[in-house]
Amino acid sequence: MALIVQKFGGSSVANPQRIKEVAQRVARVRKAGHQVVVVVSALGDTTDELLQLAAEVSGNPSDREMDMLLATGEQVSSALLAMAIHGLKLKAISFTGAQVGIVTDRSHTEAKIRKVSAQKIKQALSRGNTVIVAGFQGITEDGEITTLGRGGSDLTAVALAKALDARICEIYTDVEGVYTADPRVVPNARKLPAISYDEMLEMASLGAQVMQARSMEMAKKHEVRLHIRSSFSRRTGTIISKEVKAMEDVVVSGVTVQKDEAKVTICDVPDRPGIAATIFTRISDSRVNVDMIVQNVSRTGYTDVSFTVARPDLKRVLRAARRVASEVKAGRVTHDDGVAKVSVVGLGMRSHSGIAAKMFQAMAKESINIEMISTSEIKISCVIRKDQAVRAVKAIHDAFGLDKLGVKPITEKAAKRK
Amino acid sequence: MALIVQKFGGSSVANPQRIKEVAQRVARVRKAGHQVVVVVSALGDTTDELLQLAAEVSGNPSDREMDMLLATGEQVSSALLAMAIHGLKLKAISFTGAQVGIVTDRSHTEAKIRKVSAQKIKQALSRGNTVIVAGFQGITEDGEITTLGRGGSDLTAVALAKALDARICEIYTDVEGVYTADPRVVPNARKLPAISYDEMLEMASLGAQVMQARSMEMAKKHEVRLHIRSSFSRRTGTIISKEVKAMEDVVVSGVTVQKDEAKVTICDVPDRPGIAATIFTRISDSRVNVDMIVQNVSRTGYTDVSFTVARPDLKRVLRAARRVASEVKAGRVTHDDGVAKVSVVGLGMRSHSGIAAKMFQAMAKESINIEMISTSEIKISCVIRKDQAVRAVKAIHDAFGLDKLGVKPITEKAAKRK
Repeated sequence: MALIVQKFGGSSVANPQRIKEVAQRVARVRKAGHQVVVVVSALGDTTDELLQLAAEVSGNPSDREMDMLLATGEQVSSALLAMAIHGLKLKAISFTGAQVGIVTDRSHTEAKIRKVSAQKIKQALSRGNTVIVAGFQGITEDGEITTLGRGGSDLTAVALAKALDARICEIYTDVEGVYTADPRVVPNARKLPAISYDEMLEMASLGAQVMQARSMEMAKKHEVRLHIRSSFSRRTGTIISKEVKAMEDVVVSGVTVQKDEAKVTICDVPDRPGIAATIFTRISDSRVNVDMIVQNVSRTGYTDVSFTVARPDLKRVLRAARRVASEVKAGRVTHDDGVAKVSVVGLGMRSHSGIAAKMFQAMAKESINIEMISTSEIKISCVIRKDQAVRAVKAIHDAFGLDKLGVKPITEKAAKRK
Repeated sequence: MALIVQKFGGSSVANPQRIKEVAQRVARVRKAGHQVVVVVSALGDTTDELLQLAAEVSGNPSDREMDMLLATGEQVSSALLAMAIHGLKLKAISFTGAQVGIVTDRSHTEAKIRKVSAQKIKQALSRGNTVIVAGFQGITEDGEITTLGRGGSDLTAVALAKALDARICEIYTDVEGVYTADPRVVPNARKLPAISYDEMLEMASLGAQVMQARSMEMAKKHEVRLHIRSSFSRRTGTIISKEVKAMEDVVVSGVTVQKDEAKVTICDVPDRPGIAATIFTRISDSRVNVDMIVQNVSRTGYTDVSFTVARPDLKRVLRAARRVASEVKAGRVTHDDGVAKVSVVGLGMRSHSGIAAKMFQAMAKESINIEMISTSEIKISCVIRKDQAVRAVKAIHDAFGLDKLGVKPITEKAAKRK
């Protein structure tokens, strides 16, 4: 008998029929003798409907009241799932985040979990219940209701899996798992049976939208084994854990592409200590997340500093960039919003050479020009023209043979063994 | 500066526009220098929508989970009202029943309030907030969310008015106040400026659907002054308090009619001590509320026992009546679902004679036959044929001159002075 945490997102509990299907899935695991703690998001469109109501009563609703409002969505789906499980003659009990003691700081709408008390859940489990916890929410020490921000239900699930020492934390979503590339872009992309936290973190920040980086980081920190899988099939998905033995021979796990990028260059920046710090402090103050940063060696006492941002942030970042350019006595600021970023990710890079060369060759064969390059221990990213992105991803995917990974799919049983 | 509790029902907060109107109403009272605690029901159809969702996932949802589900409705409207008040540049803060410490027993879906801790509300008020409390809900000592059953938000408001020693508890509804008769039945019915708890209790149980008897009883017990008024106008409604001085000369406050009645008679009941107790214990066990009970003197050692019930309960009560008739060796059980009950209610009856005679004469003039009569200190009820009910009410209303009550309407100002 193991304890399993299962998290179901909004599309998995979009309507009463789906909720009943989730109940049946939970029942199968219960009948196999396991204990189950379920974390649910709000029903499909609920959050949007609540946001719409808020927008209609107020142009600028307070964060505290938004949390009061939005936290109800997950409370509704939790209660409904408990009822649906009761319908299958199994014991179940739902709790709000406040009730199970998911204690957060006071940052309304993006609260951070401070601690989780597992006692109430353990007690309910010991009485034979499936325990359902409203995701995305918590409570402060002084009894204020908070929400955890985007991807908050994943965070709830990971935090509970840690607090309860669960065998695995299953994240049910509308995709079958993590793929070597986006299947809509690369039709022969393969589902990865397993991947490491670090690779997944690189993938997540690069646009593989299965799980937010924040939850992944928490899972990595506490070594919570994750299983990303579809709520619409019984197939095994992708296991995410610390190091993936079966993957040692696999150099590259996936190729990702981000098309919604813009490139900004501050020209002729004086090459003095502290200048880069000034530039990126000012830009961070404008609340824009900078992605790649590239600065080449200086040969004249001046250098060009380039970085990429999400395209919707371009206007804001340009204002900040121009101000700081003038402050540090740099030259003009140029930008380009016709770029994309392609990346390869893989733990294997750490011990294999030639990965970058292979990637660059693949693009060269397609006559694709590389405008910027940036690398980390397990990732290589290139900025290229946006209209060449799809060709680039396919070429790289083929070059690394990702369509024919030699790894056997792991079975459901193996996946659940800790 | 006074503290005023205001309760808004579902129709008063049916949509964002209405919520903004409520916010404006609250703002006016705030700007007049008063402190305001607002109790809100769920938005218009919310509760029905949640019930529908529950019905779709489960044929027989548990009471505990129903409470988890339904309590969200009032939390949503509370948060939205707080946002709307913020939009008027006034401080406001919303709380769930749990957060303000409305502690109940464990009877899910019909919990009883055990105690109310006013501390959190007082603190928030002292910081200049309008405090909004989700109605209809509470929390048990061990942290379970409960709801208070039908009319629960009225109960919340009355309980808070008591705990906070409010000057008045305003119940906003979709009617202008309490009338001498149902204006849809008696077009020249007048709004009563004031009425006593006892009269209102008789009216409430007789079909004047402005407030549930349960909340009225709590208001009476704690002498919480109520003001029943419309959320769609600024007009003064009806004040409900212990004794209404201005009303001393008014013998009868109102005439009510209940058309959805059925009459049951158990014939030839042995006239022995304890028999009535047995009969009504059995009938109460069938969970039917019996209304009027009439038993005349026995002259043969046997008597007929009649009572009325709400028509939807007739089938159930007949089964119980037949069983108990056989148990106590009574005769057959007859029933009649073509009856109505008309009543006059008035504190003045206690000191005035001839009220019953006047009522009976009014009906006699209309050739209306009276089938059953029952009286209390401040009420006289008659069962008559249903198709004569409207004529009876109009005739009685006229006979007591209720269309030309000599009482001056009390002003808003006077109404609010405790």
